[in-house]
Amino acid sequence: MNWLDEGALYSSIGLFLREDLGRGDITTQSVLPRNARARGRFVAGETMIVTLDPQQQLEAFASDGEEVEAGKVIARTSGFADVLLAGERVALNLLQHLSGVATITRQFVRAVEGTEAKIVDTRKTTPGLRMLEKYAVLLGGGTNHRYGLDDGLCIKSNHAGIAGSLGAAVKSAREAIGHVHVISAEVANQAEATEAIASGANVLVVDGLGPAELADLVGHVRKLSAQVTVEVSGPITLENVRAYADAGPNLIRVDALTQSVKAMAIGFQIQPG
Amino acid sequence: MNWLDEGALYSSIGLFLREDLGRGDITTQSVLPRNARARGRFVAGETMIVTLDPQQQLEAFASDGEEVEAGKVIARTSGFADVLLAGERVALNLLQHLSGVATITRQFVRAVEGTEAKIVDTRKTTPGLRMLEKYAVLLGGGTNHRYGLDDGLCIKSNHAGIAGSLGAAVKSAREAIGHVHVISAEVANQAEATEAIASGANVLVVDGLGPAELADLVGHVRKLSAQVTVEVSGPITLENVRAYADAGPNLIRVDALTQSVKAMAIGFQIQPG
Amino acid sequence: MNWLDEGALYSSIGLFLREDLGRGDITTQSVLPRNARARGRFVAGETMIVTLDPQQQLEAFASDGEEVEAGKVIARTSGFADVLLAGERVALNLLQHLSGVATITRQFVRAVEGTEAKIVDTRKTTPGLRMLEKYAVLLGGGTNHRYGLDDGLCIKSNHAGIAGSLGAAVKSAREAIGHVHVISAEVANQAEATEAIASGANVLVVDGLGPAELADLVGHVRKLSAQVTVEVSGPITLENVRAYADAGPNLIRVDALTQSVKAMAIGFQIQPG
Amino acid sequence: MNWLDEGALYSSIGLFLREDLGRGDITTQSVLPRNARARGRFVAGETMIVTLDPQQQLEAFASDGEEVEAGKVIARTSGFADVLLAGERVALNLLQHLSGVATITRQFVRAVEGTEAKIVDTRKTTPGLRMLEKYAVLLGGGTNHRYGLDDGLCIKSNHAGIAGSLGAAVKSAREAIGHVHVISAEVANQAEATEAIASGANVLVVDGLGPAELADLVGHVRKLSAQVTVEVSGPITLENVRAYADAGPNLIRVDALTQSVKAMAIGFQIQPG
Amino acid sequence: MNWLDEGALYSSIGLFLREDLGRGDITTQSVLPRNARARGRFVAGETMIVTLDPQQQLEAFASDGEEVEAGKVIARTSGFADVLLAGERVALNLLQHLSGVATITRQFVRAVEGTEAKIVDTRKTTPGLRMLEKYAVLLGGGTNHRYGLDDGLCIKSNHAGIAGSLGAAVKSAREAIGHVHVISAEVANQAEATEAIASGANVLVVDGLGPAELADLVGHVRKLSAQVTVEVSGPITLENVRAYADAGPNLIRVDALTQSVKAMAIGFQIQPG
Amino acid sequence: MNWLDEGALYSSIGLFLREDLGRGDITTQSVLPRNARARGRFVAGETMIVTLDPQQQLEAFASDGEEVEAGKVIARTSGFADVLLAGERVALNLLQHLSGVATITRQFVRAVEGTEAKIVDTRKTTPGLRMLEKYAVLLGGGTNHRYGLDDGLCIKSNHAGIAGSLGAAVKSAREAIGHVHVISAEVANQAEATEAIASGANVLVVDGLGPAELADLVGHVRKLSAQVTVEVSGPITLENVRAYADAGPNLIRVDALTQSVKAMAIGFQIQPG
Repeated sequence: MNWLDEGALYSSIGLFLREDLGRGDITTQSVLPRNARARGRFVAGETMIVTLDPQQQLEAFASDGEEVEAGKVIARTSGFADVLLAGERVALNLLQHLSGVATITRQFVRAVEGTEAKIVDTRKTTPGLRMLEKYAVLLGGGTNHRYGLDDGLCIKSNHAGIAGSLGAAVKSAREAIGHVHVISAEVANQAEATEAIASGANVLVVDGLGPAELADLVGHVRKLSAQVTVEVSGPITLENVRAYADAGPNLIRVDALTQSVKAMAIGFQIQPG
Repeated sequence: MNWLDEGALYSSIGLFLREDLGRGDITTQSVLPRNARARGRFVAGETMIVTLDPQQQLEAFASDGEEVEAGKVIARTSGFADVLLAGERVALNLLQHLSGVATITRQFVRAVEGTEAKIVDTRKTTPGLRMLEKYAVLLGGGTNHRYGLDDGLCIKSNHAGIAGSLGAAVKSAREAIGHVHVISAEVANQAEATEAIASGANVLVVDGLGPAELADLVGHVRKLSAQVTVEVSGPITLENVRAYADAGPNLIRVDALTQSVKAMAIGFQIQPG
Repeated sequence: MNWLDEGALYSSIGLFLREDLGRGDITTQSVLPRNARARGRFVAGETMIVTLDPQQQLEAFASDGEEVEAGKVIARTSGFADVLLAGERVALNLLQHLSGVATITRQFVRAVEGTEAKIVDTRKTTPGLRMLEKYAVLLGGGTNHRYGLDDGLCIKSNHAGIAGSLGAAVKSAREAIGHVHVISAEVANQAEATEAIASGANVLVVDGLGPAELADLVGHVRKLSAQVTVEVSGPITLENVRAYADAGPNLIRVDALTQSVKAMAIGFQIQPG
Repeated sequence: MNWLDEGALYSSIGLFLREDLGRGDITTQSVLPRNARARGRFVAGETMIVTLDPQQQLEAFASDGEEVEAGKVIARTSGFADVLLAGERVALNLLQHLSGVATITRQFVRAVEGTEAKIVDTRKTTPGLRMLEKYAVLLGGGTNHRYGLDDGLCIKSNHAGIAGSLGAAVKSAREAIGHVHVISAEVANQAEATEAIASGANVLVVDGLGPAELADLVGHVRKLSAQVTVEVSGPITLENVRAYADAGPNLIRVDALTQSVKAMAIGFQIQPG
Repeated sequence: MNWLDEGALYSSIGLFLREDLGRGDITTQSVLPRNARARGRFVAGETMIVTLDPQQQLEAFASDGEEVEAGKVIARTSGFADVLLAGERVALNLLQHLSGVATITRQFVRAVEGTEAKIVDTRKTTPGLRMLEKYAVLLGGGTNHRYGLDDGLCIKSNHAGIAGSLGAAVKSAREAIGHVHVISAEVANQAEATEAIASGANVLVVDGLGPAELADLVGHVRKLSAQVTVEVSGPITLENVRAYADAGPNLIRVDALTQSVKAMAIGFQIQPG
Repeated sequence: MNWLDEGALYSSIGLFLREDLGRGDITTQSVLPRNARARGRFVAGETMIVTLDPQQQLEAFASDGEEVEAGKVIARTSGFADVLLAGERVALNLLQHLSGVATITRQFVRAVEGTEAKIVDTRKTTPGLRMLEKYAVLLGGGTNHRYGLDDGLCIKSNHAGIAGSLGAAVKSAREAIGHVHVISAEVANQAEATEAIASGANVLVVDGLGPAELADLVGHVRKLSAQVTVEVSGPITLENVRAYADAGPNLIRVDALTQSVKAMAIGFQIQPG
């Protein structure tokens, strides 16, 4: 599945350019001859997973989601010098950030290779960049979780508390929502897992357990139902993700895919012509 | 100075909420009784500089830009439970990110305390968040550089290359732009500094020098003109920033204020009522 | 669940008013004294299920979704005469249409009372009015189906044809979409039902069967799985809906809730004051 | 005259597509290979007046406003399968509705053939679809009345009541509006007709009279002025419209052209290729 | 009649403020203490007709359309100093321009006092300011002509040329447009006037005749029809307008009301408090 | 430098067309055959500086900023007659106004030829047309001043009054704004000039002095600093501008470039074909 709505994408990029350009690049307008032409190239400054698609006007030398080494020319472009100079900063800000998302995602995906677990993203995204960050997660080999609050139900302890009990909350959701949506419920132990499944939950979100406890819970759930999905949440790191994956969950939700993203080093080299 | 345009701010927050909410929070709509009320509080998970202003509807227990310890309740709110739950994720994503910007800025500002140098931000901001990130830089004690390409001239080697020489580029800019704007020029050594000043540059942007070389260059510039501003750029870190500040520049431009931002840990605790 | 996004609602009503008003009500501007006041009341012209919520500025004498008899004053309003006259036509066009949706929905819901079947709407809505029509369906006692193409998967024969087989299409969807969404599949007979369930479908959409055949299919499905939802589609009318409901499906999808809607007779009586 | 503003049209169709697509057609994205191609055709399910123009990207086999029989292929299209599947529902919803408007209009127009009377539409349109519905009325052979409240004056009993008298209202309008606009006035009998004409009304709107009374009124008006237009309003049906037309009015206003529209049966058949 | 659509007005003023403010008034932000308060007053610098309504937040000492002498304080305001300083230029630009329109209009209206002729405006307005300029014309005592191309028909020689003859163009328009709109036709002499009236024109627009020839034409037209409106166009000035008015036309169209508008001198005096 | 943001330009022209067209040109729709073609040409009615660029779809016979004589065909166009007729008025309104700006600017520029002084525009522009008017100033040979309140600091007596003193205001601005922006200060005499320069002002704006007093002030300033720019403001006319220029200022700010603009006579001649 692919959240990359092109209309929304161009609208976002327009916003980003406008944010930087305001009433125009007064340096370039003042210094360069009109119609001067230039060529530019984007060069990887470190090993990374490349995210290029949003800038389809580039001539790419790497495909979206490909791993490249430092020094690799990943794309080049040519045209009017003022256009290149005006778009340079926005393009770099975006490429560096999204390649950061794709790169960290790939690291998590590799860490769980050979297990059943899929690496999924969260709603802890940078405001305004969710669509692009979720696209970068896909390029990194991850799986998208729900896009937003309207795209699937997730009953948390807050909901359960206000509704009276976890079971009551799940039943109420099942009644209201009919058969069209999947219902997730956060559970902390086997008793809650049992209650949630009995009330009709399709997905259990497990937070706060260590790998061993998780393995026990997964075993418990599998006995109760073959259909229920187990999803792990919590402070998952590159160090502990394999241990969690080995415990047998279906999904591992990783905040770090889109939170505190480390921008990748990408340079832009420009020359006349 | 204060870039926090309120109209633009509310428009951005509206976009961010829409991004997460889509057609509505179907979990809360399905589970909670209509008109249920709740109270929530934002709690610092680590020591940080707080950035709260954009969410003025909160009852704040810390002022914007204040340093708080882990465990501090920084703000609370109450209202309809569905509204609190719907806005929680967006509010946290934003607060955590902006507090991250303010916190790292404060660290750099403290590192140069007692010198003449000001810490300034760059255009390496998160696409769509420039206004808010620049506001967070101010809260952290930093100084804003130009907002965008229309807000001051900066002649880089790219421009000089295409225009023929650095001096030609500066002169051309001075001619075109009249007396209304300041002109910055990137220089790599004393010869270029001399050329830029002779051509009318007001600010010299120095990149790629070590602290000792920088001190020499500053001395050279001060002899040529009392008015010219010296700004350092390059790979400035918390480790080396003091050495650069001691070399006597007016401004130190730090990419890390708004690039690869580490989100601060902030929790949201909600309960009925 | 409740699709009535208030922001979108006011934006729509603004569009509808603009459509009728253009540059202003030149009749009223030319004839009435400025600041003349008036009172108006909306009167039911026939028995109907009332849909009033979108016009919350009215003083309502019936609650949303209530059944009223001809002659009933369902709401009144007062204010500047020019405002009342300017909004009259748009308000009536909308109320009459939406009350028509709620009223026909209620008739279908009553026809299946006592069975397990829920009456659900379709995407055959009036362009631009989907949110409001789906809200009126709720008021009539119906259940909303997916809002749009992004709100649940439904594999039709078109998809199956292009993908090679029904089973292949369902499996492909299951793989791509992960565990977050429910998958519906159109089936025409028991063999296809078996194939779809085996491939992971959660909902079977049955079209083109008579009530007796449907009962057989439902029996067949129940033997294969207790979790699978059966949904009937096709030319469902007030005459045949009960027979279909008695065959045991979970959902009955009715085009007529929102297609070829008969506007309810509602009058607007205005007088000075 | 032709209300079909193309800019507004594309903007509306964009809204309608967005309403259905949301963040994208997740079924098609999950099931179909990228770049799969398909062909589709729209087939009339009953005799109807076709309204196709808004979808000019179709290859049409009938011209806008043409009458076609059941089974007729009215248009075909080909392209990427995902695009066809994504637009299918919106296209059908719109075509079926507008062809319904054109078809009922044609029935009314035929019923008055050979008389002087023109069939005109009203402001009782579907909110958001006025431009398109008025275009469909033209295709059906009808005549458009004023587009909205800013497009001609119509003094109703409400206005007359607040202004004091019908004559006062018409005179006030004539004074305010100058010579640029036509003034219509609702009259219920010969005395009011005389008063309205004496005060400067150009059009008399007659509501609530039977055909015989109408004929008398028309005769009375024609004696007073050769320029005044007589327009009939009220519960006009296919059964009584001829009798009204024979009474000699210039215009017959028919609510049913755009209210309680019966969608025409049109199918969309798609196949790979 | 009153084109002053408030929604459009506020939207326009928002645009105008944004045009001047951009990212904010950096002078005031840098210099004034936050929350400093100030009082300001608008003072007439010459005799003029005042146009104030669009700035309803002012405390006005003159009513819209009133004539004031130089030195008169026409309005005052108080509030945060930064708000007053930020809006000052836009307010003055608008008031000075619109008061210019109202003032010249009043001069033309006075020049024809005692005759039958009304002074009407044209579509030769400043792009983006039509609504406000037409409102200022009303305040000056003038009469508004059609708002735009959709608000009345005017057949010019261009149309007649392409349609074959003036009579053919008028007849074609009469047929297409039905009875809802008035039809104007440009005529150059008595023969064309006769042809236009015979074809159904309601208004004759006469251009290029001197006052004496115009009087002859008016006499000719009055003999043919009592209903037809005569409108004069052409190079009408304050010097010749009376002579034209005495020739007996109904309307005199004056380019100079909204073209080459002389801004009135209005000052803004501000002081702390 | 060039404020002509193309995106904003097309958006403005769209607004202007919509303002005039509303729901369409009903005259042309009623009279002309569909697809009739026509040719049109714009003809100068007097000597003027031409401003054509915004209408790049024209075939131009004069370049932007060129001086043409009366009778000169400055551009021609051909296409569908309805399109030409629909855009004619808006195009003329804009061309006539902008050519007026360019023409008066050229007159001022010629008047100071041979001196050091540049003619600069002000923020006294027509609301909504600032970008286009500033572009026309450039074409006329003038220099643009700051675009708006965010594009440079200008400390006026209002600011000085509220801040306590002129020097305090300048120092406060210098502190707040850092080294990125130029600071202008209004001064009335030599003492204020001295104070402003001592506090760090880069530009002195002198208002209310005669040419001789100005010359004295310029001499005084030049002795204090070689870098400071002197800008004259006040009631500058074509008659007195030369005397002011001879006094030696760097910039002369002229309200009349964009205030009370006299529209140039330009005709549009259209014929079939």
